Amino acid sequence: MIYGNAEMDKYIISIPDFPVPGIIFRDVTSVLRDPEGFKLAIDEMQKFTEGVEYDAIVGLESRGFLFGSPIAYNCGKAFIPVRKKGKLPRAVVRKKYALEYGEAEIEVHRDDIKPGMKVILLDDLIATGGTLAAAAELVESLGAEVVKIITLLELKGLKGRELLSKYDLDAVISYDGK
Amino acid sequence: MIYGNAEMDKYIISIPDFPVPGIIFRDVTSVLRDPEGFKLAIDEMQKFTEGVEYDAIVGLESRGFLFGSPIAYNCGKAFIPVRKKGKLPRAVVRKKYALEYGEAEIEVHRDDIKPGMKVILLDDLIATGGTLAAAAELVESLGAEVVKIITLLELKGLKGRELLSKYDLDAVISYDGK
Repeated sequence: MIYGNAEMDKYIISIPDFPVPGIIFRDVTSVLRDPEGFKLAIDEMQKFTEGVEYDAIVGLESRGFLFGSPIAYNCGKAFIPVRKKGKLPRAVVRKKYALEYGEAEIEVHRDDIKPGMKVILLDDLIATGGTLAAAAELVESLGAEVVKIITLLELKGLKGRELLSKYDLDAVISYDGK
Repeated sequence: MIYGNAEMDKYIISIPDFPVPGIIFRDVTSVLRDPEGFKLAIDEMQKFTEGVEYDAIVGLESRGFLFGSPIAYNCGKAFIPVRKKGKLPRAVVRKKYALEYGEAEIEVHRDDIKPGMKVILLDDLIATGGTLAAAAELVESLGAEVVKIITLLELKGLKGRELLSKYDLDAVISYDGK
């Protein structure tokens, strides 16, 4: 079952057992290779920013960069990257968190986030919500407010929306299952 | 000494000894956090695409995503990611190459590149040019033509332009030294 913008589905290739057995990987790079799919994805995600007062889009490495950067550009906002450990050159704050398979650490530049800043968190996909929850805690630890979370895809079976229930979360297209 | 768009320089923070001693890291994420710097970077890079006939922007993980994706969106073109080994879910071609410090392997989805396709390669920075040369070989191995290479920064002292001398290469701002 598909919810949201069903048109989006035709640009998304599903790959079973990647990166590990039992996971159906929803490939968003297949959206980008079609200019119409790419435009649809960006425009639909950008619609969720309308009427929202915010200072910056905080995008998650790497696929969140692909969708967050055009939207920040289009809207005249800053783009602040959240990256995996060891990639950002200036002083950072770091957060360890559990993944659907394994664990990871993410970082953000300490001086990119100012107290009182309003940010939109953006990633390609919400699965368990673990990465987005960790990113939200990171920016909140520096005194910023997460005013919205936007993703292209949502995998409802992994209940990320429950983990992130205190946030206003929008996804362009949602799939049942994992 | 700075060449090209000197205005760009004021948005770029330079960090000595990152990620290893002896390297001056030119941080492009400091460009993104200022909406004016971000707009300047994208608009100046995009100018280099004017008059160029091409089908897709091929952007290099991860910082090439930040700059390539908005330009592909603005120009109504496809965006095709080149990623580090093991990140792309569909069938890939892979290339090992030497870095300024260490070595790496990059991949592109085999069916994202069609024979006869004209592509612009895009990354944030050209240093030795090793990564861009490897990416060019990857897409050429699938029958595509690299019609241009665009970067935001160039570190002239590392002579990447010589390694890539057969390509039409443009950078918004160039620094002497490494």
